[in-house]
Parts: sequence; C-alpha cells; structure tokens
Amino acid sequence: MIKTVLENKEKYQPGLSIDCVIFGFHDNQLKVLLMKTRYDDSWSLPGGFVPVDQDIDQAATTVLRNRTGLDGIFLRQFSTFGRVGRNSANLSKVVLDFYGITEEEGLWYSSRFVTVGYYALVDFFKSAPASDGKSGYAEWVDHNDVPNLIIDHKEILDKALETLRMELNQVPVGYNLLPEKFTVPELQKLYETILGKSLDRRNFLRKITAIGILEKLDEKKSNVAYKAPNLYRFDLEKYEEVLKNGITQGW
Amino acid sequence: MIKTVLENKEKYQPGLSIDCVIFGFHDNQLKVLLMKTRYDDSWSLPGGFVPVDQDIDQAATTVLRNRTGLDGIFLRQFSTFGRVGRNSANLSKVVLDFYGITEEEGLWYSSRFVTVGYYALVDFFKSAPASDGKSGYAEWVDHNDVPNLIIDHKEILDKALETLRMELNQVPVGYNLLPEKFTVPELQKLYETILGKSLDRRNFLRKITAIGILEKLDEKKSNVAYKAPNLYRFDLEKYEEVLKNGITQGW
Repeated sequence: MIKTVLENKEKYQPGLSIDCVIFGFHDNQLKVLLMKTRYDDSWSLPGGFVPVDQDIDQAATTVLRNRTGLDGIFLRQFSTFGRVGRNSANLSKVVLDFYGITEEEGLWYSSRFVTVGYYALVDFFKSAPASDGKSGYAEWVDHNDVPNLIIDHKEILDKALETLRMELNQVPVGYNLLPEKFTVPELQKLYETILGKSLDRRNFLRKITAIGILEKLDEKKSNVAYKAPNLYRFDLEKYEEVLKNGITQGW
Repeated sequence: MIKTVLENKEKYQPGLSIDCVIFGFHDNQLKVLLMKTRYDDSWSLPGGFVPVDQDIDQAATTVLRNRTGLDGIFLRQFSTFGRVGRNSANLSKVVLDFYGITEEEGLWYSSRFVTVGYYALVDFFKSAPASDGKSGYAEWVDHNDVPNLIIDHKEILDKALETLRMELNQVPVGYNLLPEKFTVPELQKLYETILGKSLDRRNFLRKITAIGILEKLDEKKSNVAYKAPNLYRFDLEKYEEVLKNGITQGW
C-alpha cells in the first residue's frame, strides 16, 4: 500500500488525501467503518491518496474499494480539513520498518496533507468489508464506542455525523436500510438511532406522513401478539422526488 | 502576485487553491464579487493559494483580503472541486509575458489544482473592494449578469448559490444586510432576491414569525403615505441561538 517518494510523486496529487466516514445501520444499531493497522494497532478512517488521473470524487470511491472491498457506495463530499500540522511530520520508525522503506523514501508523507472528507450511510449487514489487507483490516465499530483515532479523524467523524443528522431535515432516509415493508415505529427507531435521542411518537408520525413518501399497505405486521402495527413501504417515485428537491417546501 | 516555481514551492501547499464566492446584498440587489484580470480581460472568482504555514480557513481569509481588500468577512467552506484537468495545463503566453517569467518558471501552475470553495453573504454597500491590484481588480457584478468565468468558476459560483439558498432553510439571514429597523416586506424582499422567486406574503409572515427571531416594534415605517407597515428588529439573542441550532426544530 505504501509507496516510496518517487512512485508517489508520479502517481498521486501531492499533499492531498481522502477520508471516508461510512456509517452502517442495521437492526437499530449505528456503526462506523474503521481501519485497524497491523503494525501499531492504531485506528483510523479508511483513507488514501488521489491518483493524478482521477477526479477527487472518483478517487474517494477507489480509496474505499481498495481499503475495504466495499463497492458501489454513493459517497457524498462533506468537508475538507486542512489545519497546519494536522498530520505528523514524519512516518514513525514502526511504519518505515513495517514497509521496509528508508526515511528518505518516506519523505513524501511528511508534508501537510489536506484531506477531503466523504461520507455514506449503508446497511452494514449487506456491506461486509473485506477483512484483509497488508497494512490493516476494516471493522464495523459501534458509533458510541469509537476508540482513539489517528490525527484529526475523530473530528472528521464528528463532522460527518453532524452532517448526517442535518441531512435528516433535508432528505428522506431509510430506503435500503429497512426491510421493504416496515412499520412506522421501525422507521422512527432508525431516526432515533441516527439522532441519538428518542422522539415523540405522534409528532414523528405527523412529520413523516407530511413528507408524503410513505405508502400505507393493507397489511399488518405478523408475529405480533397484540395490536399489530400497519405495514408501510416507500413510494419510490415520491421518495426520489423528495431526495432531489428536499423535504422542506422551503420559503 | 504570480511567483516562480521555486518561490512557490517553498511558500505554498502544492496543487491546492482557494476560491471565494462573495455574495453582496443591498437594496434588493444580489451581486457577486468577481476579479477582472488586466492582461486578458478574463473574469474569475477571487482566489489564491494556501501558504504552508496557514490553515485552509485562514488562507481563505488571507486570499480574500489580498485580492480584494475585504477584511473581517466570515467565510464558510462549502465544497471542494477537483476534476482532472480542471485548470489548464500551462500558463498562456499572455500571462507569462505579463509577469515577465519563463515557461519553466511558470511550471508550478501547470499541475492540477484542487480548489476549496468558500462563500459569504455581505452588504456590498458597506464592503467596498479595493479596486486596484497589479494583476486585476475586483468588481461587484449582478448575479443575473455574470460574464464568462475562467476554468470551472461558474460551476463553483452556482454551487455556492445553491448552498446559500439551502441555508435559508437552516439558519436566519438578514442581520447586517437590512437596516436595524425593517418591515416584513423588506425582509421578504431579501429572501426573494436570494431565492430568485416571489413568495406568498401570508405564508412568509407565518413562517418567519414561527422562527421567533423578530421583535415587533411600537413604530411604523414613516414616509409611507398609506397603511404604513410595522417596523421590526431582530431579537439578537434568539437570532444567535437559531444561528447555532438551526431553524427546524428537526425531528
């Protein structure tokens, strides 16, 4: 994975990296995809560099696929992080030794890297990361139980979560994260899990209904002893429309 | 302004630039601040490079001050643009001649520059740009009458406007853009100008009142012959609060 100065100079945009915050939801759990290195047990976001022949959006997809095996995920750019000295000046001896490169060969990594943050929300049950790689492996970690991360990756993760929560006010969420037919309480649980707080049942029903993306089915949830709740599915045409134009009718 | 390869290599982050989209509002006009070069009459957004010893947010402020003389403006980062080949491969002969540098000295500019976009909304009447510089001058241009811009600057401008319009749904706008005391129709006109469409009067009144940032004064607008409208001012404490937490109470 790691390359020497000269190889990198030709291949990658200098001083620029990509970091991906992949949130995974399944069965009322919100997780985040992290990388654990093999050489020093540190945790980080899946990230990498920008090939000179790739647009940054494309590079983000490539980075994610190369690092984790995940493919076909729609990544949204959310913010760029570029504080002076955000990455450490030099690669540590542990890293140099691990890759068998000299200090000079590692120099390419010593300048400031400005990093473009991308995020996505997927069903982690359907999105098993490739668990193997030379430098490390990817793992789904509960978002409430995130270990120490390298550099400013915690800040990047927090900003992504803030963006995701803000996005709940702007676009519908849920398609591909819930079963095809679901109850309103199940949808509410998704929102509560992302927001990290409980919501008023009536209020939620009123607001979610007002968006107009739910189609009430003539079916009730089975296997429920008492007062079986109604099943719904997304009206995909309206869902797409609201995804495009936003939830708020605006001004 | 333009420097040779070696000077730049030491001073600036390679392959990275900043572009600022400064919207100016005054008296129902929405303008945007553009730079016109002296050597080829091309128009562009005010932009520049990122000094190695500055955070990117700080560099954005520096760029804006150096290029336009505008200072003390709060810039928000909104998106980063990094398509392959977005900037042309080499400086044109006109530019090289203008600055009196050789093609080799200009090489630093020939790689892809990934650019971080920042935007702001200010009162253009209070924010007179410095009209002078070696390479060009800054000018307020009506946002409906933007000339051809270099590279992908039109795309950057459009994305900034889209972000600004989206922001109207999230945070209050108006402080520093309207007189201290204003009427609701004046505030509505501000929203209409930014959104580029007219709004229903009653609907606007209802929505803007619901946000809770307006304080109704015991005064009417003078110099109005008939049915003088009420004057309002922003309740700054609540304004700040909503600015921090967002307009929508959310879920």
